[in-house]
Amino acid sequence: MPKVVFSYFPVKALGESARLLLSYGGQDFEDKRVPPESWPEFKPSTPFGQMPVLEIDGKKYAQSLAIARYLGRKYGLAGADIEEDFEIDQNVDFLNDIRAKAATVQYESDEELKKKKHEDFSKNVYPAQLSKLNEIIEKNNGYIAAGKLTWADFVFAGMYDYLKMMLQSPDLDEKFPAFKKLVDTVYALPQLQKYLAAAPKTEL
Amino acid sequence: MPKVVFSYFPVKALGESARLLLSYGGQDFEDKRVPPESWPEFKPSTPFGQMPVLEIDGKKYAQSLAIARYLGRKYGLAGADIEEDFEIDQNVDFLNDIRAKAATVQYESDEELKKKKHEDFSKNVYPAQLSKLNEIIEKNNGYIAAGKLTWADFVFAGMYDYLKMMLQSPDLDEKFPAFKKLVDTVYALPQLQKYLAAAPKTEL
Repeated sequence: MPKVVFSYFPVKALGESARLLLSYGGQDFEDKRVPPESWPEFKPSTPFGQMPVLEIDGKKYAQSLAIARYLGRKYGLAGADIEEDFEIDQNVDFLNDIRAKAATVQYESDEELKKKKHEDFSKNVYPAQLSKLNEIIEKNNGYIAAGKLTWADFVFAGMYDYLKMMLQSPDLDEKFPAFKKLVDTVYALPQLQKYLAAAPKTEL
Repeated sequence: MPKVVFSYFPVKALGESARLLLSYGGQDFEDKRVPPESWPEFKPSTPFGQMPVLEIDGKKYAQSLAIARYLGRKYGLAGADIEEDFEIDQNVDFLNDIRAKAATVQYESDEELKKKKHEDFSKNVYPAQLSKLNEIIEKNNGYIAAGKLTWADFVFAGMYDYLKMMLQSPDLDEKFPAFKKLVDTVYALPQLQKYLAAAPKTEL
């Protein structure tokens, strides 16, 4: 078994998908949670000055979605052919668009502008995006793509609390029950229970 | 041969990679260039309310990077194994991070804030990102990843003029000669010449 180290901030957000996928694949790994105060020191050792980083036998890889896609292909959670992979990829990128849009609000440093943007997006952007995502999940038997469990579902489940916080939408579970149901489906997978029992509980 | 329609705005930007890849693969396609004034009417027919859209025998797919990855795998421009694909994906996502960062400036509607953001990023963000990208290309024999021509290079070449505009950096060719050289390498591929001779010339 390769030696694997996974490094990310001590939250789920964009790192949990990899932790869940490694657990699903039965891969032992060092779950390195880098606190924000150690990040400046750690940063120069990363491929792009970003986390997460997945290190396999000393070779370092970056980018959360690339990591999730790789682990998904490795552990039998990809599409059956390149057309199914295409569908998984497009739906993941759409999900990522929603996250990225909300992140432009979350990481806006001007408080007044942040409030204005949130009001704008809450009215003009999020409802259509979230309805579309809900429609996608309903069309795919409760999954993100291809009508079955794929690595895309691990991406969604891992970032769900973070997304909810950034959308400032604590009632997302009630508005779109299919979202919470999918998160619960992933977190109930028997392969993940050992990791989940031991992992630190985090809000995001 | 499947019937293929590719729809995007009448610019290169995030659509040219697919046009180039389809041409590289010898696939006839309808190059549907939707002018901005027709977009509101066309939008509801797209999978996610976004372009580009790739339609194959009536089935519609979205998301520029998912489209490029699919066409790359189809036409022999992917990695030799899942580890090489991993490297391609992470480098493309890093390139996309640079584009996305610059887009937050480009699409900022408040002119004063736009100027402030551009000054900030030009000093604190772009130099490190672009140097890293340059280092990646130099380490990969002049390509984006895996030391050889892959679909990632088509993504870079297709969006280069758009990126340059958004970075407000008309001297990018001189600052990082490896960038322009890679763009020229892609545009010189013999498989693309018929398309390039016929395609409308656009600034972005």
